[in-house]
Amino acid sequence: MYPVSRLAAVQEATAKGGLDALLLTPGPDLRYVSGYDAKPLERLTCLVVPASGEPFMMVPRLEVPAAQASPAARLGLEFVAWDETDDPYAVVAARLGRVARVGLADRMWAMSSLRFREVLPEAEQVLAGGVLRELRMRKSPAEVAALREAGLAIDSVHRRVPELLRAGRTEREVGRDIAEAILASGHATVDFVIVASGPNAASPHHDVSDRVIEAGEPVVVDIGGQLHNGYCSDSTRTYCVGEPPADFAAYYEVLRRAQDAACAAVRPGVSCESIDAAARDLIAEAGYGEAFIHRTGHGIGIETHEEPYIVAGNGQAMEPGFAFSVEPGIYLQGRHGARIEDIVVCTENGGERLNTTPRDLVIL
Amino acid sequence: MYPVSRLAAVQEATAKGGLDALLLTPGPDLRYVSGYDAKPLERLTCLVVPASGEPFMMVPRLEVPAAQASPAARLGLEFVAWDETDDPYAVVAARLGRVARVGLADRMWAMSSLRFREVLPEAEQVLAGGVLRELRMRKSPAEVAALREAGLAIDSVHRRVPELLRAGRTEREVGRDIAEAILASGHATVDFVIVASGPNAASPHHDVSDRVIEAGEPVVVDIGGQLHNGYCSDSTRTYCVGEPPADFAAYYEVLRRAQDAACAAVRPGVSCESIDAAARDLIAEAGYGEAFIHRTGHGIGIETHEEPYIVAGNGQAMEPGFAFSVEPGIYLQGRHGARIEDIVVCTENGGERLNTTPRDLVIL
Repeated sequence: MYPVSRLAAVQEATAKGGLDALLLTPGPDLRYVSGYDAKPLERLTCLVVPASGEPFMMVPRLEVPAAQASPAARLGLEFVAWDETDDPYAVVAARLGRVARVGLADRMWAMSSLRFREVLPEAEQVLAGGVLRELRMRKSPAEVAALREAGLAIDSVHRRVPELLRAGRTEREVGRDIAEAILASGHATVDFVIVASGPNAASPHHDVSDRVIEAGEPVVVDIGGQLHNGYCSDSTRTYCVGEPPADFAAYYEVLRRAQDAACAAVRPGVSCESIDAAARDLIAEAGYGEAFIHRTGHGIGIETHEEPYIVAGNGQAMEPGFAFSVEPGIYLQGRHGARIEDIVVCTENGGERLNTTPRDLVIL
Repeated sequence: MYPVSRLAAVQEATAKGGLDALLLTPGPDLRYVSGYDAKPLERLTCLVVPASGEPFMMVPRLEVPAAQASPAARLGLEFVAWDETDDPYAVVAARLGRVARVGLADRMWAMSSLRFREVLPEAEQVLAGGVLRELRMRKSPAEVAALREAGLAIDSVHRRVPELLRAGRTEREVGRDIAEAILASGHATVDFVIVASGPNAASPHHDVSDRVIEAGEPVVVDIGGQLHNGYCSDSTRTYCVGEPPADFAAYYEVLRRAQDAACAAVRPGVSCESIDAAARDLIAEAGYGEAFIHRTGHGIGIETHEEPYIVAGNGQAMEPGFAFSVEPGIYLQGRHGARIEDIVVCTENGGERLNTTPRDLVIL
């Protein structure tokens, strides 16, 4: 999965972006650049990518075996092991010399960014994301294949939901079964399992609860995890346990058309915000504008939420290789709600959905 | 579990520490102060604790139900909901007014700390840990009780290890069973499962692998998780699958005495580094000094690794309520290794071990 050429591309982008170095602590930025899924620990692990010169990685001596067992060991990088009483920040500063501008991993902890400020007092700190987003946003064919695999895996879980979701069970019980199914489907981790029944379906980021699912209730099931290949899945379907409330079927159909419209709007050159508008306008026209309280989607890759965001105000133009969710929702507070979500990849010919389970209302 | 009075204590400490405000994004600092175990998301959640005036919490509108369902809802805090196209950082800056010094959650992501720097350009950024460590390090009786519960839970898992650990099984198979046992014992999450057999036992932060455990091999089993009460467990025992190598029993006995000595050294007033030395000196005297390649321990609470660190150079004096691991190890590269770890709480009368399974070499 992990291409050795990526480090060279990152180094080139660092120079082009006017940065003297990237400082990448554990998290998705480090994993993207080096393949090393390092544990987030208080001891500093940091890949240093200078605009020119040799990249190196500070590694606590304890973590050297883990780093050596990772794809980063195949990059020809120097691992600089440090001991319990060393100051690894000072080592980075001494090796870098004078630098005017450094890019920090977007998720670098303050305990590290403030120490880097002390040891590199003249260096302006900016986000490494400024450089990396341009690379991470454009998925290679291998990355699209990894996302496709993730889509197939989560689709296989959605196919099992009808047998797990029954009136009389709690959201938590159903959620536990779904979590097991996510792991059984080939995911390395379960990132989230939302089982939102009845009025809980009106809360987009509901989790699970001890609420007992009742007959006639819509249930939003939004699930995802990370595959061993590092790429993430995320798909939502709304199920009905028996005949739904009278108005539900009507607005569900609005939602289904809105989600279709947004997927159909995907093609190179269109803006992210216009894809948001494609769904939002239809929902607003039907009178549910106030009930669609979140953006239409988020990019996805080695993080569940990354660039590009499908949201008003984002004029970024689509390019082949962009991968993101299209997930409009309609939420009636205190009553019920619905959401439909697919991961979509922009190709030369338009959007390709990576989730393909039926989007028609499923009445169980 | 979560005391309402804590927020007032934090606010007082913020003023005393010369900070104008704490800015706490999702992570252990936020959970400690408010009880809210917020999801780490790219949308800003931030508890703002000014040195004087009313604390408030910025919450993405989507997360308001989650925040309201958390203990933070009982603190009488204002939740300031923000919408997808708002700038929550600007809202914080406008509400704070002029501030000279702010404390950032130790794990605040750079994507937030750099934005706070932009909107509060005159505010010096320091770690909130400077204020919070003094509170978090001194566990209340309720916190010690929560850690004791965590100790009992992980001990019950170690008691099951002898039935799971057998020659012919892989580390991964054993690890999977242990992970299930950790959840079954009442933990909310599995944080780590180290099953390090044979030469892998010489790597302190080994995880699991597909290596088949062989007869006559020492196996280091280091396991822990987080209870629903938010507090963490962490305990290591070294097992032998059949009769161990000739020199192993000898150095294991050195290790056992060193771990005892460090536990016995715990009492109010002694320095953290002297507890490290109590174990290290014995190991060095026996000729294994070079084989003990890490600090003796780390504090534990709502994080597995937190202050105080039991390490050379840390002159911090012990106080009742300090809770930390005592986990010396001896590692012979390429051959085998051993570690013994208990969580210890400092009381008025000395150290109390929260893990109590036998520390004698267990030959299975």
